[in-house]
Amino acid sequence: MAIDPTVSRLIQALRLLPGIGQKTAQRMAFQLLARDRSRQAGVELGESVIHAMKTIRLCDRCRHFTTLPLCNICQHEKRNPALLCIVESSADILAIEQTGFQGYYFVLHGKLSPLDGIGPADIGIPLLKQRLQTEGLQEIILATNATVEGEATAHFIAELIKHSGLLCSRLAYGIPMGGELEYIGGDTLARALTGRSRLD
Amino acid sequence: MAIDPTVSRLIQALRLLPGIGQKTAQRMAFQLLARDRSRQAGVELGESVIHAMKTIRLCDRCRHFTTLPLCNICQHEKRNPALLCIVESSADILAIEQTGFQGYYFVLHGKLSPLDGIGPADIGIPLLKQRLQTEGLQEIILATNATVEGEATAHFIAELIKHSGLLCSRLAYGIPMGGELEYIGGDTLARALTGRSRLD
Repeated sequence: MAIDPTVSRLIQALRLLPGIGQKTAQRMAFQLLARDRSRQAGVELGESVIHAMKTIRLCDRCRHFTTLPLCNICQHEKRNPALLCIVESSADILAIEQTGFQGYYFVLHGKLSPLDGIGPADIGIPLLKQRLQTEGLQEIILATNATVEGEATAHFIAELIKHSGLLCSRLAYGIPMGGELEYIGGDTLARALTGRSRLD
Repeated sequence: MAIDPTVSRLIQALRLLPGIGQKTAQRMAFQLLARDRSRQAGVELGESVIHAMKTIRLCDRCRHFTTLPLCNICQHEKRNPALLCIVESSADILAIEQTGFQGYYFVLHGKLSPLDGIGPADIGIPLLKQRLQTEGLQEIILATNATVEGEATAHFIAELIKHSGLLCSRLAYGIPMGGELEYIGGDTLARALTGRSRLD
C-alpha cells in the first residue's frame, strides 16, 4: 500500500532480468524514475529489449545470435573452414574471438542435462551432425565449460565424432596465467600435473 | 564484428540500468535471448518499463512516486497529520513503512549538492515550505541518510524550520542492532557515545 501498483509492476518486471533480486530491482526502478534523462533511458531500454526479443534469431549454420539467416562470422569467407569450435553459449564466442581464433563456431546454447530434460536435440546436435557430414572440416575443438555438465557434453560430442576420422580436441586444463600454485584448487592442480608437457 | 548490431544494441541498452556493467549486461542479454519463455519475459519487461516511465509522476503533496495526483499514503486519512518524515528517496519510504510509522512523508529525491548543481529547488524545498506553513504539523522528522550530504541537507532543512515553532528531530545515530562494538567504525562509535542515553 506504500507503493503505487504501476511502480510495483515495474519492480517485478526488472526482477525478470537474470540475477536481479527484489532490492536491486527496487533501486533500479527508483533510479530510472528519478530524472527526466533516466526516464528517457528507460524508454530506450524498453524499446531496445522488445525489438531485440522479436528480431534476434539463431544463425542457420552455427546457432550464434543474429538478425540474419547467417551470422557475421559464418558470412565471413576468409576464416579457416577446416576448424570448428563448439561452445556452450554465444558469450563464449565473444571471449574466444578476443584470442584471435580464426575458425568457425557452433553454439550449443546449453549443455546436456538429463535431469532438466535437456537432451541432444535441445542443444542442436542434429544440425551439428549434418555439418560434420557435409563440410570439409578437419578439427573439432570442444570448448565447453570446465564443469561436470560441460565435460559430459564434450564427452558426448567426442563419441559422435569418434568414427568420422576428424581430429577432435579439447581446451587445455591447468593453472590460469598469473595463478599461484598455493591458491589453486586441488582438482585444477591434479589436471595440470596429468596434462604436463615436456620441455625440450 | 563477432556480434550482431541488434544484440550489441540490446547489451548497450541493458547497460543503461544503474549498476550494470558490460559483462553483466552481456550475460543478461544472452540469457533473455536463450529461450522462448525468457524472450516473452523480455517483451513484458520492455512493455512494463515503457509504461512506467510514461505514467509514473510525483505526488502533488509528498513527491512520492505515483500514477495519481495524490499517492496512496497521502490519500490515507487515518494517519497522524501532525507528523512529517522527510526522506531522500521513495525507497526510504518503503523501508520506514516497515517499522509501522504512521505519519506522512516528504520525498526530496536527492540531497543538496552544490558541486553537482543540485540546489533547494531541485529537492522540492518550495513545496516543503508551503506544507510547513499551511498544514497543522507538529513534528518534522529529518530522515536523510547518515552521509555528509545527507547531514548537510538535514541541517539546511532544520535551519528553515527553526523559527516556525515546529519540533524538529533527526533519526538516532549509533550502533546498529546486532552490531558488535569490535567491528563498528570509529565515527559510529563516537556518535553512539555522544548520543548515549540515561538508564533510569
